Amino acid sequence: MVKLVLLRHGESIANQQNTYTGWSDVGLTAHGKAQAAEAGSKIATTGILFDHVHTSVLSRAIMTAYIVQDKIGQNYLPITKSWRLNERHYGALRGINKDLTRKLFGPDQVASWRRSFYAHPPLLAHPSRSRRYHQYPATIIPRGESLADASERLLPYWSAELAPRLMAGKNQLIVAHGSTLRALVKYMEDISDAGINKVEIGNAQPIVYTLDDHLKILKKQTL
Amino acid sequence: MVKLVLLRHGESIANQQNTYTGWSDVGLTAHGKAQAAEAGSKIATTGILFDHVHTSVLSRAIMTAYIVQDKIGQNYLPITKSWRLNERHYGALRGINKDLTRKLFGPDQVASWRRSFYAHPPLLAHPSRSRRYHQYPATIIPRGESLADASERLLPYWSAELAPRLMAGKNQLIVAHGSTLRALVKYMEDISDAGINKVEIGNAQPIVYTLDDHLKILKKQTL
Repeated sequence: MVKLVLLRHGESIANQQNTYTGWSDVGLTAHGKAQAAEAGSKIATTGILFDHVHTSVLSRAIMTAYIVQDKIGQNYLPITKSWRLNERHYGALRGINKDLTRKLFGPDQVASWRRSFYAHPPLLAHPSRSRRYHQYPATIIPRGESLADASERLLPYWSAELAPRLMAGKNQLIVAHGSTLRALVKYMEDISDAGINKVEIGNAQPIVYTLDDHLKILKKQTL
Repeated sequence: MVKLVLLRHGESIANQQNTYTGWSDVGLTAHGKAQAAEAGSKIATTGILFDHVHTSVLSRAIMTAYIVQDKIGQNYLPITKSWRLNERHYGALRGINKDLTRKLFGPDQVASWRRSFYAHPPLLAHPSRSRRYHQYPATIIPRGESLADASERLLPYWSAELAPRLMAGKNQLIVAHGSTLRALVKYMEDISDAGINKVEIGNAQPIVYTLDDHLKILKKQTL
């Protein structure tokens, strides 16, 4: 038996402003930091001793991970930051208020972008460069992603970095984003393309999976 | 030309209480967190873009590194936490007030423990176990270290993790402790065993080295 804990970052400035964010880097609000600390306290009550922490290269997830590690008294854990755990890339929608996109594109189109597994948002003309990806080939940077696209670049991380550690009995903590965690839950629980639409992952609400040696889910609990 | 920045953690609870700490894990004081943020602001003015952050497995250094990374807008950097960067292990002195040790052992003995490169403090009867070292053989855990001992376990980290990255032109940030940074400065600047006694490294004062391709020091600046 091994434990896998999934945690979406605390409230970000973009959550507060109700804008699409994706790969843009925004910080946590004061409320988001408090949420992260509370999530840490909840995880601490489980007594789980982790072996590794995984997060994205985006500050809202990284800061949440840092706050949680401190709260659970496990600052010493190795932490890996990977672009594969980044939020879904919202293409040309990023920085735009979600209500405004409904006015601009119509509610049905926006609902499709958000709900369909394969629909992707309007693409950026060019991928935007950022130093945080300077050690990778430019081709990893998307111009916009469907949830299917995000899942596709997430799953190699599961296979290479997460599953082997879990199968070795090492408890893992993942601090990431709404869409990538939904994609991971979809894969782990074998949820259909249509069914994933109903899965919501709230800010800073820890999900604790208990898995067997073959990563079959024995128990799932939201703290 | 490449940049190497050394930073000792901000004021810890043990610094405030004037006790020996070593491998004991104590947090930063509020003042220590403010010092870390100020060190981050100073480093930000240099405009250095780092490739990697290195710290110990002790919270006071880790938290300082986290605060600095956030302040310089480089949260995305990979961070390695190694026991080799830990503070010198103060053996049976840890947790004891520094003034009290002078009363207990005499000022000359205490001065020798602190100043001599080879003197080690009274050793613990047994190395103390802590989960933070559970992935290492028990033999890495000292019962007490001289500065020479600390240097000996630090230098393999320099050779394996720091020097190759610097020689590849990648700027590095090390957030560590008074004794290990003194040992590193001694090695880099080829300071004698007696001479290192005069080198002091203050809490949260960034030291910026500019090095050539062979890691010869071109410039040293304390911010």
